[in-house]
Amino acid sequence: MLDFRIENLDADEVERLRRIYEPLTQSVRDLVDATVRTEVDAEDVAAAKAEIDAATARLRTKQLDGAFGVRLDPGGDGMAWGNVVVGLRNPVAPPLVVHREQSGLVWSEFELGAAYEGPPGHVHGGVCAMILDHVVGDAASSPPKPAFTGTLTLRYLRPTPLGPLRAEARVERIEGVKTFAVGHLADADGITVEAEGVFITPKWAR
Amino acid sequence: MLDFRIENLDADEVERLRRIYEPLTQSVRDLVDATVRTEVDAEDVAAAKAEIDAATARLRTKQLDGAFGVRLDPGGDGMAWGNVVVGLRNPVAPPLVVHREQSGLVWSEFELGAAYEGPPGHVHGGVCAMILDHVVGDAASSPPKPAFTGTLTLRYLRPTPLGPLRAEARVERIEGVKTFAVGHLADADGITVEAEGVFITPKWAR
Repeated sequence: MLDFRIENLDADEVERLRRIYEPLTQSVRDLVDATVRTEVDAEDVAAAKAEIDAATARLRTKQLDGAFGVRLDPGGDGMAWGNVVVGLRNPVAPPLVVHREQSGLVWSEFELGAAYEGPPGHVHGGVCAMILDHVVGDAASSPPKPAFTGTLTLRYLRPTPLGPLRAEARVERIEGVKTFAVGHLADADGITVEAEGVFITPKWAR
Repeated sequence: MLDFRIENLDADEVERLRRIYEPLTQSVRDLVDATVRTEVDAEDVAAAKAEIDAATARLRTKQLDGAFGVRLDPGGDGMAWGNVVVGLRNPVAPPLVVHREQSGLVWSEFELGAAYEGPPGHVHGGVCAMILDHVVGDAASSPPKPAFTGTLTLRYLRPTPLGPLRAEARVERIEGVKTFAVGHLADADGITVEAEGVFITPKWAR
């Protein structure tokens, strides 16, 4: 059973927390990129490491025991701020901002840099899979009712270059608790990876 | 065409670089975890952000124009230090250390914390996909000859908890340029996600 915490946060408080933590997360994303790409010498690396360790110690003076989790505000909307794909408090997340059209089409435009590399200059195939799992899963979910991935199949048409990308997804059909959804990842020249998935509505959310 | 740079690094120089950059990367991983989990107030967040920005500026005084790429040492061994799954210079990488048995079995044991969360307390299904793409792909590759993912299918048996995990993979059969490989992700209670993939040897490596 998954523990979705219900918090009594109103919109102003959510906005206040966002203003505190979002710039910090963005700074850490920038540091991650600099860490992969730096060519400074041992002395500068040691000085940077000392600054980073000081920041970490400061942040750890008061912290959650475990992971961030998913908080639901009283309206039932998800605050997945710790999420590895979309979390505004997670420096590993690019983060994706996922849009949902009236038609049911779900899409996101984002940029992937050095931190997401697999083959030289290209996005790791596993990162393509991660993003498509999330976006196709979002298409299959009607918030706040989640759907979990049952199976996911990825077809790699060509390598995906680092840089600006777009992902989109939509539901193909629903059969009972199973939702069949499809999607793709694309660069300016067209589709690079296609995905199809079967998503299951968990028992506790039916 | 992918650009694998050949560098004239001997083993001592590789070890010297590892000793400089690996502790930095590990410090940034620790900071990423602290960033997701911190509950300090706005003042401490601002102070930490200033330290982080100072470190980033220091690291950027000399840096690569683009992503890290994959360097090959003169022996043809890969130095995928920027890789998002295994890169010792990439703070997003857990990192996985992938072992290869004589039998062809490929495996890795690692721990995933707050930065890899999807459902509360659990690994994002997309992260499971990312790791399996890499490990099953490794089983399908005979270094330094790479194989790229053609298709990958993931079957999610149950949610994967954050914490210590094991991934393993092996080749099932080879048909010309296609290698069929399978693998899984497991926690202490058994398999959580199964994967099967078809991997293609690129033209330039045949």
